[in-house]
Amino acid sequence: MISFECDYLEGCHEEILKALQRTNLQQEPGYGADSFSSSAREKIRKACQCPEADIWFLNGGTQTNQLVIDTVLESYEGVIAAETGHVNVHEAGAIEFSGHKVLTLPSHEGKISAGDVDTFVQSFLSDGTCSHMVFPGMVYISHPTEYGTLYTARELRELAEICHRNHMALYLDGARLGYGLQARDTDVTLPLIGELCDVFYIGGTKAGALCGEALVFPKNNAPSHFLTRIKQHGALCAKGRLIGLQFDTLFTDGLYTSLGRHGIEMAEQLKEIFRNAGYAFYLDSPTNQQFPILENCQLEKLARQVKFEIWGPFDKTHSITRFATSWATTPEALAQLENALKSL
Amino acid sequence: MISFECDYLEGCHEEILKALQRTNLQQEPGYGADSFSSSAREKIRKACQCPEADIWFLNGGTQTNQLVIDTVLESYEGVIAAETGHVNVHEAGAIEFSGHKVLTLPSHEGKISAGDVDTFVQSFLSDGTCSHMVFPGMVYISHPTEYGTLYTARELRELAEICHRNHMALYLDGARLGYGLQARDTDVTLPLIGELCDVFYIGGTKAGALCGEALVFPKNNAPSHFLTRIKQHGALCAKGRLIGLQFDTLFTDGLYTSLGRHGIEMAEQLKEIFRNAGYAFYLDSPTNQQFPILENCQLEKLARQVKFEIWGPFDKTHSITRFATSWATTPEALAQLENALKSL
Amino acid sequence: MISFECDYLEGCHEEILKALQRTNLQQEPGYGADSFSSSAREKIRKACQCPEADIWFLNGGTQTNQLVIDTVLESYEGVIAAETGHVNVHEAGAIEFSGHKVLTLPSHEGKISAGDVDTFVQSFLSDGTCSHMVFPGMVYISHPTEYGTLYTARELRELAEICHRNHMALYLDGARLGYGLQARDTDVTLPLIGELCDVFYIGGTKAGALCGEALVFPKNNAPSHFLTRIKQHGALCAKGRLIGLQFDTLFTDGLYTSLGRHGIEMAEQLKEIFRNAGYAFYLDSPTNQQFPILENCQLEKLARQVKFEIWGPFDKTHSITRFATSWATTPEALAQLENALKSL
Amino acid sequence: MISFECDYLEGCHEEILKALQRTNLQQEPGYGADSFSSSAREKIRKACQCPEADIWFLNGGTQTNQLVIDTVLESYEGVIAAETGHVNVHEAGAIEFSGHKVLTLPSHEGKISAGDVDTFVQSFLSDGTCSHMVFPGMVYISHPTEYGTLYTARELRELAEICHRNHMALYLDGARLGYGLQARDTDVTLPLIGELCDVFYIGGTKAGALCGEALVFPKNNAPSHFLTRIKQHGALCAKGRLIGLQFDTLFTDGLYTSLGRHGIEMAEQLKEIFRNAGYAFYLDSPTNQQFPILENCQLEKLARQVKFEIWGPFDKTHSITRFATSWATTPEALAQLENALKSL
Repeated sequence: MISFECDYLEGCHEEILKALQRTNLQQEPGYGADSFSSSAREKIRKACQCPEADIWFLNGGTQTNQLVIDTVLESYEGVIAAETGHVNVHEAGAIEFSGHKVLTLPSHEGKISAGDVDTFVQSFLSDGTCSHMVFPGMVYISHPTEYGTLYTARELRELAEICHRNHMALYLDGARLGYGLQARDTDVTLPLIGELCDVFYIGGTKAGALCGEALVFPKNNAPSHFLTRIKQHGALCAKGRLIGLQFDTLFTDGLYTSLGRHGIEMAEQLKEIFRNAGYAFYLDSPTNQQFPILENCQLEKLARQVKFEIWGPFDKTHSITRFATSWATTPEALAQLENALKSL
Repeated sequence: MISFECDYLEGCHEEILKALQRTNLQQEPGYGADSFSSSAREKIRKACQCPEADIWFLNGGTQTNQLVIDTVLESYEGVIAAETGHVNVHEAGAIEFSGHKVLTLPSHEGKISAGDVDTFVQSFLSDGTCSHMVFPGMVYISHPTEYGTLYTARELRELAEICHRNHMALYLDGARLGYGLQARDTDVTLPLIGELCDVFYIGGTKAGALCGEALVFPKNNAPSHFLTRIKQHGALCAKGRLIGLQFDTLFTDGLYTSLGRHGIEMAEQLKEIFRNAGYAFYLDSPTNQQFPILENCQLEKLARQVKFEIWGPFDKTHSITRFATSWATTPEALAQLENALKSL
Repeated sequence: MISFECDYLEGCHEEILKALQRTNLQQEPGYGADSFSSSAREKIRKACQCPEADIWFLNGGTQTNQLVIDTVLESYEGVIAAETGHVNVHEAGAIEFSGHKVLTLPSHEGKISAGDVDTFVQSFLSDGTCSHMVFPGMVYISHPTEYGTLYTARELRELAEICHRNHMALYLDGARLGYGLQARDTDVTLPLIGELCDVFYIGGTKAGALCGEALVFPKNNAPSHFLTRIKQHGALCAKGRLIGLQFDTLFTDGLYTSLGRHGIEMAEQLKEIFRNAGYAFYLDSPTNQQFPILENCQLEKLARQVKFEIWGPFDKTHSITRFATSWATTPEALAQLENALKSL
Repeated sequence: MISFECDYLEGCHEEILKALQRTNLQQEPGYGADSFSSSAREKIRKACQCPEADIWFLNGGTQTNQLVIDTVLESYEGVIAAETGHVNVHEAGAIEFSGHKVLTLPSHEGKISAGDVDTFVQSFLSDGTCSHMVFPGMVYISHPTEYGTLYTARELRELAEICHRNHMALYLDGARLGYGLQARDTDVTLPLIGELCDVFYIGGTKAGALCGEALVFPKNNAPSHFLTRIKQHGALCAKGRLIGLQFDTLFTDGLYTSLGRHGIEMAEQLKEIFRNAGYAFYLDSPTNQQFPILENCQLEKLARQVKFEIWGPFDKTHSITRFATSWATTPEALAQLENALKSL
């Protein structure tokens, strides 16, 4: 049965398989010193217009978040995030496990507002007991968010401004950045992210790779001895070539861009299908995660024809669902979905 | 100048000084194996009606909270607490530093409700992604709370029932328990706490001792090798006699009770003084912390005559203040406060 | 230039690439719930003759060691290992980073002896201050060791016996187990390891896979909520299929066996080449890592023709070197090495 | 029965009790902001000739060691110590629990040699795989050591020179410093320690106080936000006055000096008593811990008359024992010991 449950259901784009095949028996040194990783780093630096960027390849998102937050923060600092942020909800406490508190702010469709950050920090600084409290040392945002929404360039600038005025790092979790960059109407680009953020990652796992995330410190600003810190966290890949090669492929001939664009096109068609069938959405997501509202009595019937995620209750008789498209979604899959909806 | 800023401004009750003097050159083994600690444990077991209780003497409250939460929880478990709970706000992230998330619930004048705990746990258990989330493994309550309020016996029973039905430990932070037990109208007693809680501590620092808290596992249920765990946390006192002797003294001839009662009597007189002078309170606290509302323009003038804490804004023109009484508060101090209020 | 520097220089065996190609667009659930992982688990259970085994797929060796040691031990326990053990030397302190001391014993060509373990444990137990010390809770061995050596079945039995008599877990790091199992004259088999060890891992990264290790708890004895613990350590792969599929391939039609055997055959030929050329070895390794002794003046000249690792000084004029073969070593590479040696 | 088991068997010097009595009802702010702590800091700065020193009062030795090592080191750094060092043996793994490896060097009667440190560091720096290893970031020494021995000024200088050349901190654990400073023939003074060490602590618990250690960063070089870091470690005393007052008393009118001198005089007499009775010592300790060698058959008989510690076996028929004197040892106790020895 076709599934829209998430955006990591398939293997990887065929160009990656070809590259693996082509380079398979080439001997390369381990731990990220291979030639593919070097090449990938150079291509990402260009795509971000960050010629000095430190770039590291890691295996997954939670691992990357845990590593970044733990190594960039001082031990007495915590990370500000939306209540709904992945680091606050769905990482099994990996952030706290490495010693840091997640300082939560209200979620505005998955986003936090610069104003809320400012209020939080001012309140902390003016509290006479603040030396007994967790210091805010970083702001974590996901872009796209867990709700598929996007920051505008202006919102990013405001967040960056508040962060830097208060000596906090701005960290962008780009697990689904490939889709975010290709959304219609977005004015956020890789170079802008490289300019405004202190650290961010470009997601591979959900955007066409078998595994892997590219962690970018855009101003040559990785914590000292970063390779050792990665190793100490159990996150250093022996065969760094595996992730390096995948990002080298994704950043060759615009593949990362075209995969993101495909995911967005599929999402727009999926939206159209739901709209035409008379369904409303929980919110207006411009990226590859869509949240149609279904009647509870329809859920089971639809689930017999396509797979999707039940996100939570909307009201007594309706539920919010999540349908994700990806680089791998096919028009045929959408047609199946359309038919399934008609049958409800 | 007289201060009502907190309840740990003085040294200790004179009986403790006398006991220190009397026993000073008696040789005793270290690390809690001294005869004073043994005697104190026996007296506390009797006071709690918990003949099997494991009792450990620790130096301070944050240390105790960190140790209990870290050693009772599994690594993947977090602790449920009120948003306003000490562990969530004023311990510099000590809980997260030892690896555990604080799972916050709304504060009802410092308390959490059994209903909110139940809703939280049911929501967790019914979430299909719960294996990617922090498991609720313990409920933390303070009694009295940070707002001076108290649970009723019925509320405690309900919390205990929900905890035990869901295999969570119920932990009571009794930093100010000495005052809580003596509040007018409370139906919560030490034996009841020993019956309902899986672990709790009886505060010494704020209730007449120079330092020290008595940690009680009422059913012989301390984590295995607990002395080693305390040592590993850097919390094992070489001269355990110092805290053991203080608790032995506090639990001799009802001293702990009478010191608590004195603090409550002083608090009731302080309330009367404020009420008579026409002030309202932020909430109705039955214990030794009181939260009168003052006009902002009065704050500075009053602060020139007595010390107190500004708790936060009430409205544009008023502030919430905190005045704490203790075992050491004198009628003379209250008279000074009364005069000071008259002069405003 | 041909390299013998380590055993993770190439990609993976071509059967794995074919399997990746064949299954690429098949939709599969994440986090290890995919059908490939299920199939791989079943095949590994059979190969180990452990029908109840809990099996988890992880990305790398240090990650696996850190996870196992941290989740199997109590917080106050440490792990016994050889001074030369990977966990003690080359994991950047990952074990201590997760809170546990490595309790070192002398290395006997990379191995620890049951007698030394026994002496250590007896000494601990009879020490009156042992409650102030780190408890030995696990024995870590690597098989093959970092020196290529192997335990005998009898040595493994003795270690297991001492471990279990003293309530310690026996953990076998099988990063290079594929080669160990195929060594001439070894009497250690996968079923024996499954019988004697409490936990072990079957290495993929160095034995034909792109990445991945199969962690085996042979008696259905993984720590509770192990998926959550993996996630909390940042070690849970979203696309678990990637590692599951690789192990499914390795354990199909004896591939893991034949790859190990190839590595061993190449190692035996490499030994022969060195012996014939008149070189001695630092020790007699029956597996894929060989440690020939070269004159210091030869090192640079040889390094211009083949790559290898300088392990350390042997005496004033000689060095110990390491040459590793693997599943990917070719007869042509050995011929090149032979010629290079002749030219010295 | 008189005990020589350790140097923390009694309460405290009577001047401290008097000071507690005298100041008991004086209201003072918490968390080290009290006037006694301020005064004590000023007196310690003078005694150390370190006018800029940051000084913090902590409760115990393991706590202090854990805090210093964890906050001064980077996460990827370990601490060099003697195999016999307290941090390596008798702190229940508190150092590893906070994430850091203890890098052990051979013990020379409890001391480490500058040469050994140099060799270790050079070996680390020249190792091609050092980025996969724990970085040496600090040298820990105890002075006096766990064997009662002392560094000379020259040895300390050499250690400091090697530390600073290699960007490592030198940390001196002065749990028994009061006795070390008063040993006959020592040329190590508080100002010298302040000059050469990056951080050290002056022990109170074993030198006349009820509890407490004074942690000194002699060059205003405490880690940032150190109060918050202390709180986060659960080590911040609410009534900081308790330890502040004790150190204020100890550093008034030379009390710390005279208590140390008394302990040393008692130790010299104890040595004389053993020597006159024909006993040898395990080593020549110039401080308050003495290690006479007794026949095994004498141990039980002596233990019926005085308490002491059995340190370990010397040979088949003899044991090493430890007898500790202190500020509280009396001539009468020594006379009892002398009689007891005669009766053997």
